Amino acid sequence: MQYHVNGTLVPAEEASVSVRDRGFMYGDAGFETLRAYGGTIFEWDAHADRLQATCEALSIDHGIGDDLKRRIDETLEANDLRDAYVKCSITRGVQPGKLTPGPADNPTVVVVASELPRGGENGESVWNAPASAELVETRRVPDHSLPAHAKTHNYLNGILARLETDADEALMLDSEGSLAEGATSNLFFVREGVLHTPSLSGPILPGITREVVLGLAEEMQIPVRTGRYRPADLRRADEAFLTNTTWEVRPVGRLDDSAFEIGTVTRELAAAFAALVEARHY
Amino acid sequence: MQYHVNGTLVPAEEASVSVRDRGFMYGDAGFETLRAYGGTIFEWDAHADRLQATCEALSIDHGIGDDLKRRIDETLEANDLRDAYVKCSITRGVQPGKLTPGPADNPTVVVVASELPRGGENGESVWNAPASAELVETRRVPDHSLPAHAKTHNYLNGILARLETDADEALMLDSEGSLAEGATSNLFFVREGVLHTPSLSGPILPGITREVVLGLAEEMQIPVRTGRYRPADLRRADEAFLTNTTWEVRPVGRLDDSAFEIGTVTRELAAAFAALVEARHY
Repeated sequence: MQYHVNGTLVPAEEASVSVRDRGFMYGDAGFETLRAYGGTIFEWDAHADRLQATCEALSIDHGIGDDLKRRIDETLEANDLRDAYVKCSITRGVQPGKLTPGPADNPTVVVVASELPRGGENGESVWNAPASAELVETRRVPDHSLPAHAKTHNYLNGILARLETDADEALMLDSEGSLAEGATSNLFFVREGVLHTPSLSGPILPGITREVVLGLAEEMQIPVRTGRYRPADLRRADEAFLTNTTWEVRPVGRLDDSAFEIGTVTRELAAAFAALVEARHY
Repeated sequence: MQYHVNGTLVPAEEASVSVRDRGFMYGDAGFETLRAYGGTIFEWDAHADRLQATCEALSIDHGIGDDLKRRIDETLEANDLRDAYVKCSITRGVQPGKLTPGPADNPTVVVVASELPRGGENGESVWNAPASAELVETRRVPDHSLPAHAKTHNYLNGILARLETDADEALMLDSEGSLAEGATSNLFFVREGVLHTPSLSGPILPGITREVVLGLAEEMQIPVRTGRYRPADLRRADEAFLTNTTWEVRPVGRLDDSAFEIGTVTRELAAAFAALVEARHY
């Protein structure tokens, strides 16, 4: 396997960054998790926009532009990958030893890839069962401390949430006690035929899969509401599911100690998502 | 210059970690910033205890034990450093590609060092003027999202605070609007002869220098109060200073647009700190 580090393909086992890289020292970096289906990146433009928004939130003016996409494609090609997981990161690079950053004129750019089953309609799912989920004590970092729309290498909040549970996903509340999101996924639930998901006015990552699912729901004329919800709203839901780039649409089969049925709306949205993948990538 | 990476001294320019190291991907690591005076580490036991508390908060059961101190000493010796800045980090290492961590049975351990003026009574200060400080909008991450006593590689909160200002230090409030701390320093202020500092019941790093200064104040019979304070309490203070391992005791000369006098209590505590350094390290 080869990874792409600072413009060069290198053997995976040699792919490294300096111990003085700010990405290592401070998690001072933005990233995206991508999915390639049949050799092309799903929703590239949306991911590129979000990475740009992250870098703007962190004032990492990296100047990489379209070259990032070229490096991603080169990584897929070099490893002969068609159906793959891809992670690309941009750090502020190595700078003099102060916390206050200087201009990011020498950013570190890393592209990592590995094979991942295709998904879609006739592919293999990356998960083998509905997700178990648990509401944990760790609260999502508030926007005034670290903007939630920025997808950064500061991921300890989610790690601490996951460490609290053996479930597949740890669901966090925000500081006010409203449902926020999972450590790596957005949360949806269905009650009396209406699809609900926490609104982006809370500390919620604007998930790309979340956005695609909301678009599909609109096309399918499923009523959608976004808002602030309490744990009780989720507990009395008829169905629930999680979304992220890797899981796509993953039903929740268990929340804390209660079982959830995998319902019609979840099934229809998962099927529509798979069909979209097929329609775009062959 | 040589750094210590995973038990081996390597040239600084080759000192690196895998792009799949969790320290790089997620900031999933604890660290300490240390000061060597005359070849020995100041307050080693306190730093070792805090690093242990950080690793426990992150469930990084690294098993390094006393070998970390040996590696630090080896790094100082290899570089012929007597007065130095040292940073040591322990990450959860490279693990399979999931966010949920496995046992840290192969942690990554990094020791970085560089020369730093001695400080103390007749040494050179690392800062050349009192600090300018600004109260910024970014709020300190609350304890329920990431425990403040853990000193981790998730440092974007402080970076975003620093990006808001040209001042030497960005002072943050906590979510409730009480004074918390600077991006890399603890805050003290003096009013009518009483020394005040935000209590550790808030989201405050238990600074080693903070603790030493509190001990000196007690010995010097300076009245001390810790508590929750509002920005107005700081604004009407007679003097203020910042503490950290690198700055030691650094007076605040300016807060936002107002000048602060460097007062007697600050001078006396700075002198007592310098004397302590001299008494312990020669």
